[in-house]
Amino acid sequence: MTATVTAYAAPSAKAPLEPTTVTLRDVGENDVRIDIKFAGICHSDIHQAREEWGEAIFPMVPGHEIAGIVAEVGSGVSKYQVGDRVGVGCFVDSCRKCENCLAGEQQHCLEGEVGTYNARFYDGEPTYGGYAQGVVVDENYVLGIPEGIELSAAAPLLCAGITLFSPLNHWEAGPGKKVAIVGMGGLGHMGVKIAHAMGAEVTVLSQSLAKKDDGERFGADHYYATSDPATFESLKNTFDLIVNTVSVNLPLDKYLGLLRLNGTFVVAGLPDKPDELQAGPLLTNRRRIAGTKNGGIPETQQMLDFCAEHGLAADVEVISAEEINDAWEKVVGGKVRYRFVIDTATLPATA
Amino acid sequence: MTATVTAYAAPSAKAPLEPTTVTLRDVGENDVRIDIKFAGICHSDIHQAREEWGEAIFPMVPGHEIAGIVAEVGSGVSKYQVGDRVGVGCFVDSCRKCENCLAGEQQHCLEGEVGTYNARFYDGEPTYGGYAQGVVVDENYVLGIPEGIELSAAAPLLCAGITLFSPLNHWEAGPGKKVAIVGMGGLGHMGVKIAHAMGAEVTVLSQSLAKKDDGERFGADHYYATSDPATFESLKNTFDLIVNTVSVNLPLDKYLGLLRLNGTFVVAGLPDKPDELQAGPLLTNRRRIAGTKNGGIPETQQMLDFCAEHGLAADVEVISAEEINDAWEKVVGGKVRYRFVIDTATLPATA
Repeated sequence: MTATVTAYAAPSAKAPLEPTTVTLRDVGENDVRIDIKFAGICHSDIHQAREEWGEAIFPMVPGHEIAGIVAEVGSGVSKYQVGDRVGVGCFVDSCRKCENCLAGEQQHCLEGEVGTYNARFYDGEPTYGGYAQGVVVDENYVLGIPEGIELSAAAPLLCAGITLFSPLNHWEAGPGKKVAIVGMGGLGHMGVKIAHAMGAEVTVLSQSLAKKDDGERFGADHYYATSDPATFESLKNTFDLIVNTVSVNLPLDKYLGLLRLNGTFVVAGLPDKPDELQAGPLLTNRRRIAGTKNGGIPETQQMLDFCAEHGLAADVEVISAEEINDAWEKVVGGKVRYRFVIDTATLPATA
Repeated sequence: MTATVTAYAAPSAKAPLEPTTVTLRDVGENDVRIDIKFAGICHSDIHQAREEWGEAIFPMVPGHEIAGIVAEVGSGVSKYQVGDRVGVGCFVDSCRKCENCLAGEQQHCLEGEVGTYNARFYDGEPTYGGYAQGVVVDENYVLGIPEGIELSAAAPLLCAGITLFSPLNHWEAGPGKKVAIVGMGGLGHMGVKIAHAMGAEVTVLSQSLAKKDDGERFGADHYYATSDPATFESLKNTFDLIVNTVSVNLPLDKYLGLLRLNGTFVVAGLPDKPDELQAGPLLTNRRRIAGTKNGGIPETQQMLDFCAEHGLAADVEVISAEEINDAWEKVVGGKVRYRFVIDTATLPATA
């Protein structure tokens, strides 16, 4: 069956988003058609639609934090059935053959994974994302959302959640570990919740103390302002792990100075200019800087199960479709606590 | 007993080294007095004597690659006796109380370890290094040189050897691991030997192919010229570990591109200007950049035992004291294969 759904799309770079119609691909043997219920707004939606990360594909239906209900399945689908609560994250396919795909780390597919939007399938067809009423995705790239997590609060887990869970999991945040989360936005607030649930001693490093109460509510043990130079003195040689969620250039030397022996500073953001890296602070304490990039399918499912088990989800502000353009401005201005989620029931019946 | 020995010293920054006399400190309860037989020349000797790394202490007797024979021991010494073959590396004391010292990682002492030269003991007395006929060192900072390694070829292990052994050991170079060594100088040639002995598949990345035969003799499986752009294409996503021994600024992006999933680029050199670090190549493949800095006392002993077990040592050119100034020029010009070692028997009887 071919289905047509309404969506919000950017017709061209920097133009406001507007209602449109998307024709979904036929449901193939291994495909799942999902009725999207909620879609989170990620800052990278804006970067891509405004071509701040390079040339983009238009019209663009953004959205890679998708939560919904299975509406139809292909004849070969075994993992899901109609009515299941499911999610889709940052990618909808990958080569499935490279060593990274075989290791379940599809986010690092050596052929290039297929982004959920602003990308092309291997056959050249463009992908359209979650600001829509529906999407068709191969079951191998669909996640199960456990009962107990509201769909609206689950949506941001598919990008913000996994982007923080993956490094915290990989670098073994847990009892006895001192973990700092830099930034208290959409990513950071999930980092605090997850690191706390893993049992680590959690410190927030935020520009100011404005969100201190929230941070403590999310599970932070300590909260410091990075605008205060004393922070970098008093926390020297402290952390086993720092996860930086901020996409601006930071004074790396100062942040590296906060790491104790064998500590790692993980870069989850993507500033557009290079950082300056001095060898000295890196040699001291055998420090490391590492990159991270959302997570593979198995780890994303592990994250969703972990969140359900620990009663975690994102703190969200649910908005209607016609608020999307305003919401984008607020995201750019850092005025969201902590994730906007579009209720797709508010999309117009026809565009 | 107070002993006086002859030495070669830099009287001031950039002045040539000349013979001098050093009065050794009294042999204390836990001290070992060592008759130095050989001292390696490390590029950092030159950087420090020429104040390229900041203000230095003069007169300076350089040398932190020391091999010799125990000549006298204090009443409380239990590890060594007169006649033992011993070595001293980059430091001669540390606070012994911080978490890093307690972990046996004295090279990362949080109070600052005491350098073998161009440094001061905690009581303020200056330290003098290995370009001398003798030195007095606390037994806890003295290494045993196993039988089977010539003292002349052992001396460079105390800095060049441990500086490469430590990251190769820490990041588990071994069977099934692809390891690249950047640079084929004093450090690099030890890296090739050690990584090969550990069982890794070893690639040398050198500016040219000039030292290819040597590299293969040391155990390299592959040898590539970094001056050839094709090198960076053909080796994309290849290595688990790259150890960079070169102290100049490299195009990090290109080198990071050579790392496969979870691969680490280890910085063992210390360029004077910061590197440019782009987040993109770091996020891909969950790559890491790490620093390393010689090694702690237990790991240095482990390295010496490993080298003896595998029949490894440095390739050296033994020189006389009066050749030191010329040798420094050759080190700066990269004209040594692969380490100059001073035969201290050639020091003048009196200065």
